[in-house]
Amino acid sequence: MTDVRKIYPRDRVVLREVGLRDGLQLVKTFPPTDAKRRWIRDEYAAGVRHFEVGSFLPAKTFPQFVDVREIVATVGSLPGGHGIALVLNERGANEALASGVAEIATVVSATEEHSRANANRSRESAIANVKRLCELRDASAHKPIVNAAISMALGCSIAGAVDPKEVIRLVEKCFEAGVDAVGIADTVGYAGPKAVGALTGAAVKIASGKPIIVHLHDTRGMGIANASAALDEGARVLDGSLGGLGGCPFAPGATGNVVVEDLVFLCESKGFATGIDIDRLIAVRSILRETMPNEPLYGGLARAGLPCGTAAKAA
Amino acid sequence: MTDVRKIYPRDRVVLREVGLRDGLQLVKTFPPTDAKRRWIRDEYAAGVRHFEVGSFLPAKTFPQFVDVREIVATVGSLPGGHGIALVLNERGANEALASGVAEIATVVSATEEHSRANANRSRESAIANVKRLCELRDASAHKPIVNAAISMALGCSIAGAVDPKEVIRLVEKCFEAGVDAVGIADTVGYAGPKAVGALTGAAVKIASGKPIIVHLHDTRGMGIANASAALDEGARVLDGSLGGLGGCPFAPGATGNVVVEDLVFLCESKGFATGIDIDRLIAVRSILRETMPNEPLYGGLARAGLPCGTAAKAA
Repeated sequence: MTDVRKIYPRDRVVLREVGLRDGLQLVKTFPPTDAKRRWIRDEYAAGVRHFEVGSFLPAKTFPQFVDVREIVATVGSLPGGHGIALVLNERGANEALASGVAEIATVVSATEEHSRANANRSRESAIANVKRLCELRDASAHKPIVNAAISMALGCSIAGAVDPKEVIRLVEKCFEAGVDAVGIADTVGYAGPKAVGALTGAAVKIASGKPIIVHLHDTRGMGIANASAALDEGARVLDGSLGGLGGCPFAPGATGNVVVEDLVFLCESKGFATGIDIDRLIAVRSILRETMPNEPLYGGLARAGLPCGTAAKAA
Repeated sequence: MTDVRKIYPRDRVVLREVGLRDGLQLVKTFPPTDAKRRWIRDEYAAGVRHFEVGSFLPAKTFPQFVDVREIVATVGSLPGGHGIALVLNERGANEALASGVAEIATVVSATEEHSRANANRSRESAIANVKRLCELRDASAHKPIVNAAISMALGCSIAGAVDPKEVIRLVEKCFEAGVDAVGIADTVGYAGPKAVGALTGAAVKIASGKPIIVHLHDTRGMGIANASAALDEGARVLDGSLGGLGGCPFAPGATGNVVVEDLVFLCESKGFATGIDIDRLIAVRSILRETMPNEPLYGGLARAGLPCGTAAKAA
């Protein structure tokens, strides 16, 4: 059984590259398998170790994830590389287990409205699925980490405001169901740092030392401020994507995930060593520019570069 | 004599629009006087009250500020409107006093290297100028507020890292010289929220209730996170510009001041009422697009809009 604390140590920050999954979830044009491999290898060389690699979803609807098994294998071949794949049902869970991926992620909506509209099931049924996933994990040979993310945890595109108590209840339910880690996701980028900090702190408190993964979108420019608040409240695992890949076609111009290059700068400026070389990370953007020329890329560090002079080190 | 606490109350947040000065400092194309007036009037209608309107600099070198007296008068004609003008020497100070502007801002570099390279004077000499400006204020009829900003306070483009103790020493010197408010400026956007919070907290502590104005640039995407940290540490006056106007031509693509629209969202999300209507504020960007079509405009709220549903209010 994988020791979750070897993958997500308590005493350091882990930044996860989710661009290969969340970043590609809604795009029409995506990098071919070979470019995805270069993307992973080059980010690995820059110091990234955790990659959300894709989703076990019907290949007809999501051709961008048809090579998910090969990408799982690519990350698995790198010493210390940790791959994560998303599943939404039992078929996907079984395929993910068969792929040998190190971590399986699944999702529970924070609101009943979104759960029914998006996944056509109640939240109770979603929690039952989480439990089933944990049973399948327990019965598997390699016993991957299971992580359940609470989507819309900081505001819902259907229900609007979300009661943090309700989110914490779902976090508890997921841990009871047997997950190794829980994510809290500001899926549509509704929140500010006060709400993110408060929810993170409450989740960390009930997690009994298990990882709380904070997944933020920069839709309204609050992403880095929210990440800073999450770090202040004890989160040590944050998601981000290269160039902020993952914009939502339903909100034209809205950026996607928090820019991972800027997350590195934020963490280092707060005294959290990430082990990631920002300049090498920025260089990987060229792969996205070549293979997804129409996707806008974001990020302050990529625009302006590291501060010059001694401040570069001190930052 | 103007009561600084009527202009900058202790118990609420003031957001200052600095786009008409800092945002235009380095541009080649700028709005004509009439468009500047519409910019101010429309932002005033959205709820903005504090405007940095221009600089008393040689009109030959800075044609964008040749109409500064008229813009001072525009802001002065609006009930509760508060105009701020920048001066760098005694000639400018006298011109500013004659203009009747409500607040005069001046600058002291945080580092000796930057002071000599940028202003051709020592920091000691800059402090002497601040003192002289305060004497001129005291001798004037309307006694405007005087504010001294410490530029490069969080990292210097020449000297690199800056010792916060040195900045606090300069803040003290400025208060001793007689200023009503002190600014701390991350002029080149070098800092993260930890450094901004720590310096802000230290400055607020020694300000004896006088305003500390936090002036941030979003060069590396940390602007909103830094503003959040400054608010957490007691700052109640923050600068920003519409669309983040004020990019630096020496760092291609680098954004300028923190986007004021996003600052409003941040403040409201933290429970600080700003009195500013974000949608009306966003609408003012059209004036910039028309009159400065080549200047990129930034901002998450302008891209994505306010959250839908009840979250809009809760945010």
